[in-house]
Amino acid sequence: MNYDIIVIGSGPGGYVTAIRAAQLGFKTAIIEKESLGGICLNWGCIPTKALLKSAHVFKYLKQAEQYGLNKVENPGFDFSKVIQRSRGVAQKMSGGIAFLMKKNKIDVIMGTATLQKGKKVSVTDEDGKSTEYSGEHIIIATGARSRELPNIPQDGKKIIGYRQAMTLPEQPKSMIVVGSGAIGIEFADFYNTMGTKVTVVEFMPVILPVEDEDTSKHVEKSLKKSGIEIMTNASVESVDTSGNGVKATVKTATGNITLEADILLSAVGISSNIEGQGFEEVGIQTDKGKVLVNEWYETSVPGYYAIGDLLPTQALAHVASAEGITCVEKIKGLHVEKIDYGNIPGCTYAHPEVASVGLTEKQAREKGYELKVGKFPFSASGKATANGDTDGFIKVIFDAKYGEWLGCHMVGDGVTDMIAEAVVARKLETTGHEVLKSIHPHPTISEAVMEAVAAAYGEVIHI
Amino acid sequence: MNYDIIVIGSGPGGYVTAIRAAQLGFKTAIIEKESLGGICLNWGCIPTKALLKSAHVFKYLKQAEQYGLNKVENPGFDFSKVIQRSRGVAQKMSGGIAFLMKKNKIDVIMGTATLQKGKKVSVTDEDGKSTEYSGEHIIIATGARSRELPNIPQDGKKIIGYRQAMTLPEQPKSMIVVGSGAIGIEFADFYNTMGTKVTVVEFMPVILPVEDEDTSKHVEKSLKKSGIEIMTNASVESVDTSGNGVKATVKTATGNITLEADILLSAVGISSNIEGQGFEEVGIQTDKGKVLVNEWYETSVPGYYAIGDLLPTQALAHVASAEGITCVEKIKGLHVEKIDYGNIPGCTYAHPEVASVGLTEKQAREKGYELKVGKFPFSASGKATANGDTDGFIKVIFDAKYGEWLGCHMVGDGVTDMIAEAVVARKLETTGHEVLKSIHPHPTISEAVMEAVAAAYGEVIHI
Repeated sequence: MNYDIIVIGSGPGGYVTAIRAAQLGFKTAIIEKESLGGICLNWGCIPTKALLKSAHVFKYLKQAEQYGLNKVENPGFDFSKVIQRSRGVAQKMSGGIAFLMKKNKIDVIMGTATLQKGKKVSVTDEDGKSTEYSGEHIIIATGARSRELPNIPQDGKKIIGYRQAMTLPEQPKSMIVVGSGAIGIEFADFYNTMGTKVTVVEFMPVILPVEDEDTSKHVEKSLKKSGIEIMTNASVESVDTSGNGVKATVKTATGNITLEADILLSAVGISSNIEGQGFEEVGIQTDKGKVLVNEWYETSVPGYYAIGDLLPTQALAHVASAEGITCVEKIKGLHVEKIDYGNIPGCTYAHPEVASVGLTEKQAREKGYELKVGKFPFSASGKATANGDTDGFIKVIFDAKYGEWLGCHMVGDGVTDMIAEAVVARKLETTGHEVLKSIHPHPTISEAVMEAVAAAYGEVIHI
Repeated sequence: MNYDIIVIGSGPGGYVTAIRAAQLGFKTAIIEKESLGGICLNWGCIPTKALLKSAHVFKYLKQAEQYGLNKVENPGFDFSKVIQRSRGVAQKMSGGIAFLMKKNKIDVIMGTATLQKGKKVSVTDEDGKSTEYSGEHIIIATGARSRELPNIPQDGKKIIGYRQAMTLPEQPKSMIVVGSGAIGIEFADFYNTMGTKVTVVEFMPVILPVEDEDTSKHVEKSLKKSGIEIMTNASVESVDTSGNGVKATVKTATGNITLEADILLSAVGISSNIEGQGFEEVGIQTDKGKVLVNEWYETSVPGYYAIGDLLPTQALAHVASAEGITCVEKIKGLHVEKIDYGNIPGCTYAHPEVASVGLTEKQAREKGYELKVGKFPFSASGKATANGDTDGFIKVIFDAKYGEWLGCHMVGDGVTDMIAEAVVARKLETTGHEVLKSIHPHPTISEAVMEAVAAAYGEVIHI
């Protein structure tokens, strides 16, 4: 079969690319070896949010009295039902992608793809049968997997990655989480809320190391208060799985210690899926485990493109989607803007939630900007007080000279839905004054953005 | 005593004005006859949000199984504790205003103010003692109260306004809510969720009549599904309170009917507090129950200003605050922009929440625009699905010719915190394309904004 566009991988990079391609009139096929929707939808973003929502509601059950409600005696859950609900949500969304493929007349080819020269792809189905397809443009979106460290080899039972962490047959009594990026912190929060004793081990001096220092410190304090043990400046040297659970030898500033738990979750980042797909055979250049592309996502071999977690850009679903859309719009010959990788929001959906975009204060200072920094705590927000959840803040960073909004950092319930304001305003090249004079509705948490900006300019009202 | 600025009334208009005045170096006093924070903080925005949060958590208790949690047997509450929590939140916030007044060195004068000629104010305290104060500038922010209709006279017991509705000594078994603006719908939702049988009577053909028709229809359907009875095109002709409860005679298209309930809540709007304050004596002009001001909030008498619910502009806390800030910044001689009353967001905090800004589709068509309209339902949102709450949508309205964002209408959990994106983007004169190309984080509800815009331009991915 010949296609205008063949997309390999149906994660949020691939399936979005295929839909946009079909909209633009391209005859499009998408190849998937496992489940439509890829990791994000089946084993990442979506099912973890379902788990975290169950945990959030469980928290409300435990806090009922705080809201004037009767105490819930022995609030509990069936762990398998919580997992089951999460799987159900993933399956529903995956079914939705199947519907979208059909609606957009995209051919879905199930099997494992191998790139071949001459803009061809060979697909081997589960019976071992291979079929060859050719396309004018081949867009590779095969994503990434949990990174394995040599001293923390995943066995899928006691030393696990994110995939197993969201489908454990039973709830562990205790868990060591290695790595405190978004994935590590989300699982730590989920399991801790459900009653597992959680210890987070982070190599860096702070958790959520890509976030602003104020965010890292605040979230560390919140999570500790909720019962999570956190060790920073610490690294797992080895793990002994010979007993009932795991024994991890952890190197700390004051010497080695041993942590014991039922399970160890390795959440130390991801590795791009660049092996065994024919990259070398076709001649597609890679570097340090990532595919090299130009600004329009074309690889070193004309006609072959790569997007998403294969690239050195941020490994985030929304980045992959945007790259795919940009890639096919460029192929179509539309007037396309390059993606501004400095304006990509990042979120962690723990409790409290974290969302940010742009520079941290430290990065901004290192770049030599003179800054106006404002911060507004949710403890001063009427809406947060009414909600009974004042754990959080908004921090904004402006260039003192021209008023450019350099960075925005949010912690607290609901902020992952609020960061869009900063993304759009930055896209529109706002100044602080324009945000300040945009009338935010009262009483909302979003007022805290306006107040943080006011704080940066010495005009804050409520603190 | 002489002041630079005297503010009368300490609601979100008055107290914000006073703080901004003090920041600008004015010697400032604020006069309050009852409680710092005014209606909004003590009897409006804030305590109602506390009640609605209790109701929302109660809903989670009833839905626990949906999240894989054990069924909560006999979820219940002590009505007085729910009320008490709400009062506690209001008191805490009022205490916060007292702190802010002190911190900003604003003199708080407790008592009832009467305007006098020559930029003077006489204040009578609770002992009946009067003191005279004079100010260079007198800013009147005495707000509004529940509007009384002659055929629905409020007795505070069985025919009540919003004040009584948030402090009832016991929960009514049944309630008639007259009027379906934000206040009516919020109380209807609160009482219904807590188990009161609620009937809403609305004079107009739809509920939430200021909202876009799609919003009104959607919310009506949701509320009916949750058990609220809704009668539109209906008006209360008379109320008989002689029996145990109330009997309301309601005029409908098909004739008069009688509704019976424990209590009737009149939520038919507000009346500005323009009586008995010396407006006539000083010569301040009013019209149709509102104070007349110029674009900088000066009344017909130099040196006297009015802001907030006294004016014919939108009766919203955030409008009052913005007017007060604008007023004192202008007095100070700062470069001040006029408030754009076309870019004021409005919110209703029921479940589902409602938020909107700009024109409705009908208004936009009536103004002669050619439109691009896009809508994205939360049923297609991965995050909403993970949250287990897909009741809602985003609707966006653009001018087809220049891409101006004419209106944005949101229904669903969390949207009151999401409308800020549209407010700021509109302030910055965005086009649809710029919102579409702002990368929203995945998975969030905020993606639905981007998708709705994409839908308007024929580029939507997920439907």
